[in-house]
Amino acid sequence: MSAVVGKLRETVCRLHDELVRYNLVAWTAGNISGRVPGEDLFVIKPSGVSYDELSPESMVVCDLDGEPVGGELSPSSDTAAHAYVYREMPQVGGVVHTHSTYASAWAARGEAIPCVLTAMADEFGGEIPVGPFALIGGDDIGRGIVATLKGHRSPAILMRNHGVFTVGADARAAVKAAVMCEDVARTVHVARQLGEPLPIPRPAVDSLYDRYQNVYGQRSPR
Amino acid sequence: MSAVVGKLRETVCRLHDELVRYNLVAWTAGNISGRVPGEDLFVIKPSGVSYDELSPESMVVCDLDGEPVGGELSPSSDTAAHAYVYREMPQVGGVVHTHSTYASAWAARGEAIPCVLTAMADEFGGEIPVGPFALIGGDDIGRGIVATLKGHRSPAILMRNHGVFTVGADARAAVKAAVMCEDVARTVHVARQLGEPLPIPRPAVDSLYDRYQNVYGQRSPR
Amino acid sequence: MSAVVGKLRETVCRLHDELVRYNLVAWTAGNISGRVPGEDLFVIKPSGVSYDELSPESMVVCDLDGEPVGGELSPSSDTAAHAYVYREMPQVGGVVHTHSTYASAWAARGEAIPCVLTAMADEFGGEIPVGPFALIGGDDIGRGIVATLKGHRSPAILMRNHGVFTVGADARAAVKAAVMCEDVARTVHVARQLGEPLPIPRPAVDSLYDRYQNVYGQRSPR
Amino acid sequence: MSAVVGKLRETVCRLHDELVRYNLVAWTAGNISGRVPGEDLFVIKPSGVSYDELSPESMVVCDLDGEPVGGELSPSSDTAAHAYVYREMPQVGGVVHTHSTYASAWAARGEAIPCVLTAMADEFGGEIPVGPFALIGGDDIGRGIVATLKGHRSPAILMRNHGVFTVGADARAAVKAAVMCEDVARTVHVARQLGEPLPIPRPAVDSLYDRYQNVYGQRSPR
Repeated sequence: MSAVVGKLRETVCRLHDELVRYNLVAWTAGNISGRVPGEDLFVIKPSGVSYDELSPESMVVCDLDGEPVGGELSPSSDTAAHAYVYREMPQVGGVVHTHSTYASAWAARGEAIPCVLTAMADEFGGEIPVGPFALIGGDDIGRGIVATLKGHRSPAILMRNHGVFTVGADARAAVKAAVMCEDVARTVHVARQLGEPLPIPRPAVDSLYDRYQNVYGQRSPR
Repeated sequence: MSAVVGKLRETVCRLHDELVRYNLVAWTAGNISGRVPGEDLFVIKPSGVSYDELSPESMVVCDLDGEPVGGELSPSSDTAAHAYVYREMPQVGGVVHTHSTYASAWAARGEAIPCVLTAMADEFGGEIPVGPFALIGGDDIGRGIVATLKGHRSPAILMRNHGVFTVGADARAAVKAAVMCEDVARTVHVARQLGEPLPIPRPAVDSLYDRYQNVYGQRSPR
Repeated sequence: MSAVVGKLRETVCRLHDELVRYNLVAWTAGNISGRVPGEDLFVIKPSGVSYDELSPESMVVCDLDGEPVGGELSPSSDTAAHAYVYREMPQVGGVVHTHSTYASAWAARGEAIPCVLTAMADEFGGEIPVGPFALIGGDDIGRGIVATLKGHRSPAILMRNHGVFTVGADARAAVKAAVMCEDVARTVHVARQLGEPLPIPRPAVDSLYDRYQNVYGQRSPR
Repeated sequence: MSAVVGKLRETVCRLHDELVRYNLVAWTAGNISGRVPGEDLFVIKPSGVSYDELSPESMVVCDLDGEPVGGELSPSSDTAAHAYVYREMPQVGGVVHTHSTYASAWAARGEAIPCVLTAMADEFGGEIPVGPFALIGGDDIGRGIVATLKGHRSPAILMRNHGVFTVGADARAAVKAAVMCEDVARTVHVARQLGEPLPIPRPAVDSLYDRYQNVYGQRSPR
């Protein structure tokens, strides 16, 4: 394969360490993919392989129908959902799926996470929305993600009774969204346990979102 | 002992690291056993030894009455329960016992964990059931486990006021069930703290369970 | 100093790693002491020193009035409480103090932890009791500990609005009690969040306690 | 730059490890600064750089208007708030900002943390107060911090819907306050989940605070 694919295998493989570090995954239940720039391909975690045993070589290259292109390992059982997102959202370069605890708890109740923290306004630009219940395997999950996230500021969606999908300009940005999604899901949950969090006025949410997307970080591309 | 037993000592010893990694155990309170293939023997953790000090040599080989076969260390104080399961459930090749926090909290209330997450449908095929209150030492715990799990899809049982037992085709599968049991026990607990989780329709549970048991992972045996 | 004291400095120093490992302490807020066998002395953590910087040499040797015997570092600000316990409870060889989260939460409400887990019956023989509110520095804390724990099965006490003290035959046994106290404090808290835990009948508590104290572990001294 | 600045870059850089160790930060959301002794300068984390990649050289030196003095990296997006505090509170030598979970949850409800733990009386001398809602970037956050903390014993403030700021005589003391703030925020939250914590009488709070500030630790400067 090309040097670009080789580099992406390495990047996607290593990013799984962040899912482990932030306690977003148990056993093998979570996966990351990254789009190969300029090609109709993406790189994704193999199915049912533990995070300790992942290597760049074990990552699976798939076409945008989710079919593996060579290699011996089966791709993640969530591959169809990743593929659907790449087909329908051309600006997306990375997709992450987890069952992280607090986000999945909101998903189990089918409840969106209200934007009551400045950190949520920064990263998500408002609430984190809920998508439909969908069975795994076909296009239903992907369809639910795209229908909900298209035209929405949030890079994260809570799939009902299931877990979280996040998207980003690249795999690293999608991982960041997954980390921040669990972080705010937990903080808002904890806040709600003892009363009602105070709302943030919409203009303040807009102002925070605008600043964070355009001013935060270093000038070089993140 | 034979090479098969030596290998199993190593495997069972190392799997205890997963109990520590996933915070399923405090001090010495949790144990794993594995059946010796083709023999009426199993390998189990010694009693009261800390996880840092476990070595393959310190694992205790027992017969199916739970009696140690040679060696100097006493086996886990839960050995009688493991032995009963091996005698009565020939398809079981591994047994795990923990007092993991969230699962034990459901057990303290004597409440089954309802299947409101797709990850639960995948691994447990429905709710995680509750077994009776039983004193340690004799056959009561083993009897409670077998009476509840025989004919049940769930590889995990919550023993009332006590903790969790899980079974699997081998020790690794039983450890996976213990990890997933705590993970879903925690997520469903968190979901319930702020309202009622939405139910998953039974046909969807069946479909998820069927797919996960037959399609997930790599084609080679797990 | 004698070889016995040197060994005890090493043991008490290293046991602080367990407080860190089990997340029982933040910054420098927790301490362990051990009685010097056959002498009216004990070894205790220095005050305000971080766990990373502890060394056997930095441990402070005190007499049973809590006065340092040589050395340059000040002993833990809880030294008077440790000393009082050693004076009044000759069977105690180790004392631990922490502000571990869940146990301290019960202490903040002034509520004993009810015995609704077999692991509590094993280690504590019943509920974990609450001691009085007491200011630090003089004998008040020590007096509260001794008045509550004398004649009680539990090696742990929740000091009101403060935290936990545990005792044991040696420092390691007291650390084990501190680890198990937080573990059951958390599990019973979690159980109570969604309803009432089921009680364990008193005869079953007695039977579990008797077995654990006499049969559990290896025959050699722990 | 001078040796003093070089040493401070190293100190401030390394202190970020404590934010990670105590789980006070997710991804890049938290920052520490330290005042350069005897100069109108402070050293602060660069914006949007992950904790793994921080080096002493990457720290940004700013003047008390928050403007970088040389260097290529942009300072933390919270720099204006740090600068305001240094301008208005000359006794402050270190400032820390986090979105730590439990403290931020109290902040989301706009609720001060009541002083119901002796450890709170020790470090904070009473409740941990709430500051106003303020947008990031200008002087509003700094103004809210100073207006609330001037003349208050607490070195920590909960900024509404946002997170925590702490101050100290140096950066290390501010980090300690951030660690202790999250610790007591969590314990008081947990206590409140199952009832009302008991109050500590004001004279006892005063006595604990006085002792801790003057007697605790080693005689050498902390």
